Amino acid sequence: MKKSANEIAALRWGGDRLYMLDQRLLPGEETWLELRTAAEVADAIRDMAVRGAPAIGIAAAYGVALGAIQPAGLDADMALLEEARPTAVNLRWALERMRRRLETDGPEALSAEAEAIHREDIEQNLAMGKLGAALIDRPARIMTHCNTGALATGGHGTALGVIRTGFADGKIEAVFATETRPWLQGSRLTAWELAHEGIPATLIADSAAASVMARGRIDWVIVGADRIAANGDTANKIGTYSLAVLARQHGARFMVVAPTSTVDFEIATGGEIPIEERNPRELWRVASSGELPTGLNVYNPVFDVTPAALIDALVTERGVVTNPSTEKMRSTLQSRPAPGEKQSPIVVK
Amino acid sequence: MKKSANEIAALRWGGDRLYMLDQRLLPGEETWLELRTAAEVADAIRDMAVRGAPAIGIAAAYGVALGAIQPAGLDADMALLEEARPTAVNLRWALERMRRRLETDGPEALSAEAEAIHREDIEQNLAMGKLGAALIDRPARIMTHCNTGALATGGHGTALGVIRTGFADGKIEAVFATETRPWLQGSRLTAWELAHEGIPATLIADSAAASVMARGRIDWVIVGADRIAANGDTANKIGTYSLAVLARQHGARFMVVAPTSTVDFEIATGGEIPIEERNPRELWRVASSGELPTGLNVYNPVFDVTPAALIDALVTERGVVTNPSTEKMRSTLQSRPAPGEKQSPIVVK
Repeated sequence: MKKSANEIAALRWGGDRLYMLDQRLLPGEETWLELRTAAEVADAIRDMAVRGAPAIGIAAAYGVALGAIQPAGLDADMALLEEARPTAVNLRWALERMRRRLETDGPEALSAEAEAIHREDIEQNLAMGKLGAALIDRPARIMTHCNTGALATGGHGTALGVIRTGFADGKIEAVFATETRPWLQGSRLTAWELAHEGIPATLIADSAAASVMARGRIDWVIVGADRIAANGDTANKIGTYSLAVLARQHGARFMVVAPTSTVDFEIATGGEIPIEERNPRELWRVASSGELPTGLNVYNPVFDVTPAALIDALVTERGVVTNPSTEKMRSTLQSRPAPGEKQSPIVVK
Repeated sequence: MKKSANEIAALRWGGDRLYMLDQRLLPGEETWLELRTAAEVADAIRDMAVRGAPAIGIAAAYGVALGAIQPAGLDADMALLEEARPTAVNLRWALERMRRRLETDGPEALSAEAEAIHREDIEQNLAMGKLGAALIDRPARIMTHCNTGALATGGHGTALGVIRTGFADGKIEAVFATETRPWLQGSRLTAWELAHEGIPATLIADSAAASVMARGRIDWVIVGADRIAANGDTANKIGTYSLAVLARQHGARFMVVAPTSTVDFEIATGGEIPIEERNPRELWRVASSGELPTGLNVYNPVFDVTPAALIDALVTERGVVTNPSTEKMRSTLQSRPAPGEKQSPIVVK
């Protein structure tokens, strides 16, 4: 059965509980977790029942809303949520926004604020979908990495949102989705989303990307982001940097799609972004059910940093920054609209 | 328990049967298959109980020796073995050598010829180990891909043979082994061999190679080969080409280690090398035990081609070719010694 983007969702808010699709079990099983405390939400973020920078931010906001039911523990709850994952800045951005709303309107307003963050994320994704798709010439052949779709966000998706909109506009003839080791977001989640949407998709091993680029045309590599430094350097799923080098080598353009909540103007360059290393077992478990050989080390960083110089276009809900630099980033993205104020996207060339 | 290279073996000849370590079950289980017919050997090659270009060639030679027990079916047996895998030319090379021996000395000589192929492969690996290690300056940090060790060859290994010899010479301080999707030769086999040898090894996802090169020094990427064209273009495990591009980008040198039986002077460039595509399930099965989503394609090429221009050194038992070209390849490698004649390795600069 074909499902629309609206039917695929990572999170549903129940007022006094958060329903969360357990992405660890996809695509085999669709199991919804029912979370009633901030601590349960923090665990679910850490253990990757929910993943994807925007979805993590939204989940954390709902976690705070659950914490507000017993406001005495709110500070501790927020600290717990903040520690759940280190790289995606959207988590800290969402908590900061919840904290400001708490100060102005008290705990009763936090449920509405979390819902606003969720709703705005979907709107931003739809806006980015249009801005990104406008950069694509038909008939385009796209490569994407990890999962940046409805499951990684409030809905529609960032990079996958651009692919959805571009496909709806008749511009995309083929999408290559990398498997995305070690967590297999590409084969488990992106392949599932693309197949549900009827978008012609081909799954490849991460290591086959260079061969696909060399043997057939790829026009755009389109990815999301977990944190973007002030100069445009972009932390994203491990393997993104490799694809950016290969894209440049093979004449494919490289597009990063992320809401401005992913941009961290506090840090100047990508070298300052903390890179999460996860348990060796996440890599090892497909090789053997047994223990690691004695003496073998495992290095399992789950993000890498792509230098701004390899990025042709950064698409945000506020506009497109081509060949990003600190100056262009600030002029396009840092003049935030007042709450409720609508601002047209700006394209900086 | 630490095992020496001599104790790790893919194949043992029993005179009327071939004992084959089932590499599909490693590292969890050490199970030896007992094969009594050429057809059983062909099946084992096709289904990857044995893999690695030199080991495939040796296994095929023993398969012919088993076929010689009932010589009436020998032509059909050789045809069956030849079809088992398309990319590694060592398979065809070994069968051609067996065919010549059959013509001169009859079926009774084939067991001895297979044993000679096996023994010579080990000698060649030891020679390549020395030649390759001589190119390495201490203290070196190495990256390798797939498995090219005792399990992939008659013994010692090609790329892993250079690493073994270089480590014994005190030149190597760190080895990074890529997981090598989809078949996990790196995590299942190379990690196992390196740990057994006490060589300091770190397992990484294929997609983490770029990040490792960017964040820490890699001096040499060292790989094997399944077929090398006359101009030096090299087919090897999927992901090799990507590593070659990344090595050039990050100032690491790139070494291919393979016996001259891997060189196919019949074909001018890598574009003519047949690239095997294997079953989509080899990629999909770690994502889900269920079926592929309807409408999803899988592209599962298991080799790619690295252009000669990205290869700094090609190490064979006959000598080292730096920056390979058709002319250098022919002058170093094509003047074959007469059978039994020893020839000193030549280094072409």
